[in-house]
Amino acid sequence: MFERLRTDILPGLVPRHAKIMVAVSGGPDSMALAHILWRYMREDPAREISLVITHVHHGARKESDQEVKLVQQMAESWKVPCRIHRFDAKGYAKATGQSFQEAAREWRYARWQEDMCEEGCTHLATAHHLGDQAETILYRLLRGSGTAGLAGIYPSKDSIIRPLLTFTKADIFQYCEQEKLPYAIDASNEQPVYVRNRIRLQLIPTLERDYNPRLQEVLGRMGELLRWDEDYLVQQMETAWNLFFLKGQDQSVGLKGEVFKEPAAILSRLLRRAAMLVNQERRGLGYTYVTKIMASQGKPGWKQDLPGLSVRITEEGIWFSKPQKREACAGGSLVADTAKPSCLDIPLVLGSQHKISGLGVEVALLTEEDVASSAAALDGPGYAVAVFSKDFLARTQGSLVCRTRREGDKIWFQGVGHKSLKKVFQEAKIPAAERSRYLLIASGNEVLWIPGLCRSGLCQAEPNSPKAFCVIKPQTGHYNLNSL
Amino acid sequence: MFERLRTDILPGLVPRHAKIMVAVSGGPDSMALAHILWRYMREDPAREISLVITHVHHGARKESDQEVKLVQQMAESWKVPCRIHRFDAKGYAKATGQSFQEAAREWRYARWQEDMCEEGCTHLATAHHLGDQAETILYRLLRGSGTAGLAGIYPSKDSIIRPLLTFTKADIFQYCEQEKLPYAIDASNEQPVYVRNRIRLQLIPTLERDYNPRLQEVLGRMGELLRWDEDYLVQQMETAWNLFFLKGQDQSVGLKGEVFKEPAAILSRLLRRAAMLVNQERRGLGYTYVTKIMASQGKPGWKQDLPGLSVRITEEGIWFSKPQKREACAGGSLVADTAKPSCLDIPLVLGSQHKISGLGVEVALLTEEDVASSAAALDGPGYAVAVFSKDFLARTQGSLVCRTRREGDKIWFQGVGHKSLKKVFQEAKIPAAERSRYLLIASGNEVLWIPGLCRSGLCQAEPNSPKAFCVIKPQTGHYNLNSL
Repeated sequence: MFERLRTDILPGLVPRHAKIMVAVSGGPDSMALAHILWRYMREDPAREISLVITHVHHGARKESDQEVKLVQQMAESWKVPCRIHRFDAKGYAKATGQSFQEAAREWRYARWQEDMCEEGCTHLATAHHLGDQAETILYRLLRGSGTAGLAGIYPSKDSIIRPLLTFTKADIFQYCEQEKLPYAIDASNEQPVYVRNRIRLQLIPTLERDYNPRLQEVLGRMGELLRWDEDYLVQQMETAWNLFFLKGQDQSVGLKGEVFKEPAAILSRLLRRAAMLVNQERRGLGYTYVTKIMASQGKPGWKQDLPGLSVRITEEGIWFSKPQKREACAGGSLVADTAKPSCLDIPLVLGSQHKISGLGVEVALLTEEDVASSAAALDGPGYAVAVFSKDFLARTQGSLVCRTRREGDKIWFQGVGHKSLKKVFQEAKIPAAERSRYLLIASGNEVLWIPGLCRSGLCQAEPNSPKAFCVIKPQTGHYNLNSL
Repeated sequence: MFERLRTDILPGLVPRHAKIMVAVSGGPDSMALAHILWRYMREDPAREISLVITHVHHGARKESDQEVKLVQQMAESWKVPCRIHRFDAKGYAKATGQSFQEAAREWRYARWQEDMCEEGCTHLATAHHLGDQAETILYRLLRGSGTAGLAGIYPSKDSIIRPLLTFTKADIFQYCEQEKLPYAIDASNEQPVYVRNRIRLQLIPTLERDYNPRLQEVLGRMGELLRWDEDYLVQQMETAWNLFFLKGQDQSVGLKGEVFKEPAAILSRLLRRAAMLVNQERRGLGYTYVTKIMASQGKPGWKQDLPGLSVRITEEGIWFSKPQKREACAGGSLVADTAKPSCLDIPLVLGSQHKISGLGVEVALLTEEDVASSAAALDGPGYAVAVFSKDFLARTQGSLVCRTRREGDKIWFQGVGHKSLKKVFQEAKIPAAERSRYLLIASGNEVLWIPGLCRSGLCQAEPNSPKAFCVIKPQTGHYNLNSL
């Protein structure tokens, strides 16, 4: 197994000088992954690879303390830095079953991305294997999915790498045994209470026994074929997007009428993308609504109210907008109209406010106490507000700034991963000349908020955890409020 | 159900003046389908739709005689023509399990296509429903498939229409009850001995109970989304094919070296198509070999022998050829080099031979007795021979001709359906100017054989059934033998 990883897989996933954050739960998969990456790092120091281990303590289970110990001991003996997070299960108490699992999963990814940002890591490595791939594909198939969903887990996407994705659980157990690696067994994984657990523990073994003993391999291959297709289709859609996009007022997004002549594969993706920009839903638009809109054939006058979305077709094209008008100015994007805005780089410290001279804007980073003591702290004409996790800000203290864009800026979205700021601006059709006039809040090149445009999935405040409020207040009329 | 069919579905599938061959087994699905089409036909005579019923008597089961009766009685009372075929189960005795089912299925499609050809039908209607769709998609998923396979059954492809594809079995039973339609139950469908039966009888109900009660609907939607993608990808591949195709010698097919710069979705399809043209396999090339070739990155000098296929990369591009050289002339395509070959239209009658003046070619249609009485009947330098089903020829007696191509010519391939002759020539990269010089054997515009180029899936002789031999013999040197 290590031999195949060393020669065929890792060279393609891990470039020289990579600093890899390895997510280690303490189970066999992630212990094996950490060990493999550690061997790979030490085997040839000329590669100049370094590791950081990150672990999430799931208070929900009693074995959690043992797992933390296991991971910390390993990291210590290897002299690799190790970060521990505690998942606030109480905060997610309302969510049950699958949605709890999903919430916990999304929470972990957000923490890892924050860790990467703080540690300056280039990659995040997770221990997904072929069984996870098969489970994911079947899970999506059973819930209904198109090519994108059935494409399964990517072995490498954005900065996340999954070196074990083509190996089976049996391969991993064998590796642990060979290398005498200790590991913990997460008992909750063995209980068929969650849908995904049932797929793994009951459905896959049944299908292997009754239909195809090589089911996991077959699903893994199917995933790869569909990733090829999906990647190409998305690329073709992007080209078409630039041809058909219309920027509307009031946060509405339009596509030129000729879009209805596009083949269904492209048209359906364009409609989903446009809807997604307005309703902020990951899928954008379900199958039923996509087919409904396609059946309209683009006839001017057609309109339909969908959940969270209002769609209408005019002579110019098809328009997606929010069903209710949002309040006048709140959350409008802030565009600096002074000269040389690129000099702007204002450090933000909790509890203070900064006037940005020449911009007529004041930026404040307020605590809950600040907000509680003044009713007007967050509420004024044209104010833009984002709520951040105070803990995260505390860890990045000193690196949070209000500035304009720089080369290499990126922003992370839940379920999407990192996007370059360039891409975000492109998709919002903001002319290149205007882009450097947008204010943004960032830590390093990790952008957390572009007021009025979009918000990163990182540094989000969780229920019942300390919050910090970033407020941007207009002081004069000397700036523009644009709507996406 | 009829209302939705009448307003939403049938107008899109059945044009005016359609002559529809309905495949009726006597089971509830096909009895309902026949009844629905008959109602639709009678409801508005202005549509000028007509029906022909075709039924296959599967001698294998004892209920078969009752089924024939049921279908014949219905056809009689509706005054609709009805054709009965007898499936020679003995001839397929060697095949067992799934392969027997598949052989029977392919046999049925071939007979139906022949019926359509003889009756002048424009469409074939089959009674596939949502359960069949779900079963097909799961069957392909479990065996391993890409987008094309997971796209499932098409509601309309070539001349085959499937009006019931979005209705459940329960909808169909309800329709039969409502309309008091008699039907037979095929007991062999209820036995979980075949994989497909097990999927239908065991897997789908389990998945519906434990994972998603709307599984069939969800799989039906998935199929539609993937058909959109596959149709677009094939269209993009066709465009690329014309850019990269290289015609080789000795039946080899090549693609220019730059093809390796194409995205994986397109490159993999081009490689499969090229392989398919050489090895005549439906898939062309499996996943393992596709990835192997892609991993070569097109480096000249690379070569590999695959099953039934030899692949090599030269400075010019990548070449697919048969591993062994075929015999010198046999089966070479026959190209007329006389003037005005389009006047050619020679009726073929069993037991006779025709000299084609000016072409230096003799065309003979021989019986088994003719062949048995002369050892040299099929065997001579440059002879091209095709074996036809004598029964089929008997039914088309008088309409079989040797001629050159005409507008509207088409040829039917097993597992593919009809292709226009134009497309066949295009794919073989035969210059437009040369196409009308190719000899072919046809019945109406249904081409059965293009000597040396390809053979239709129709009119194939079955084991233990009477055969007819079509032989084309060169009389002089006055024609060219080309190889594809």
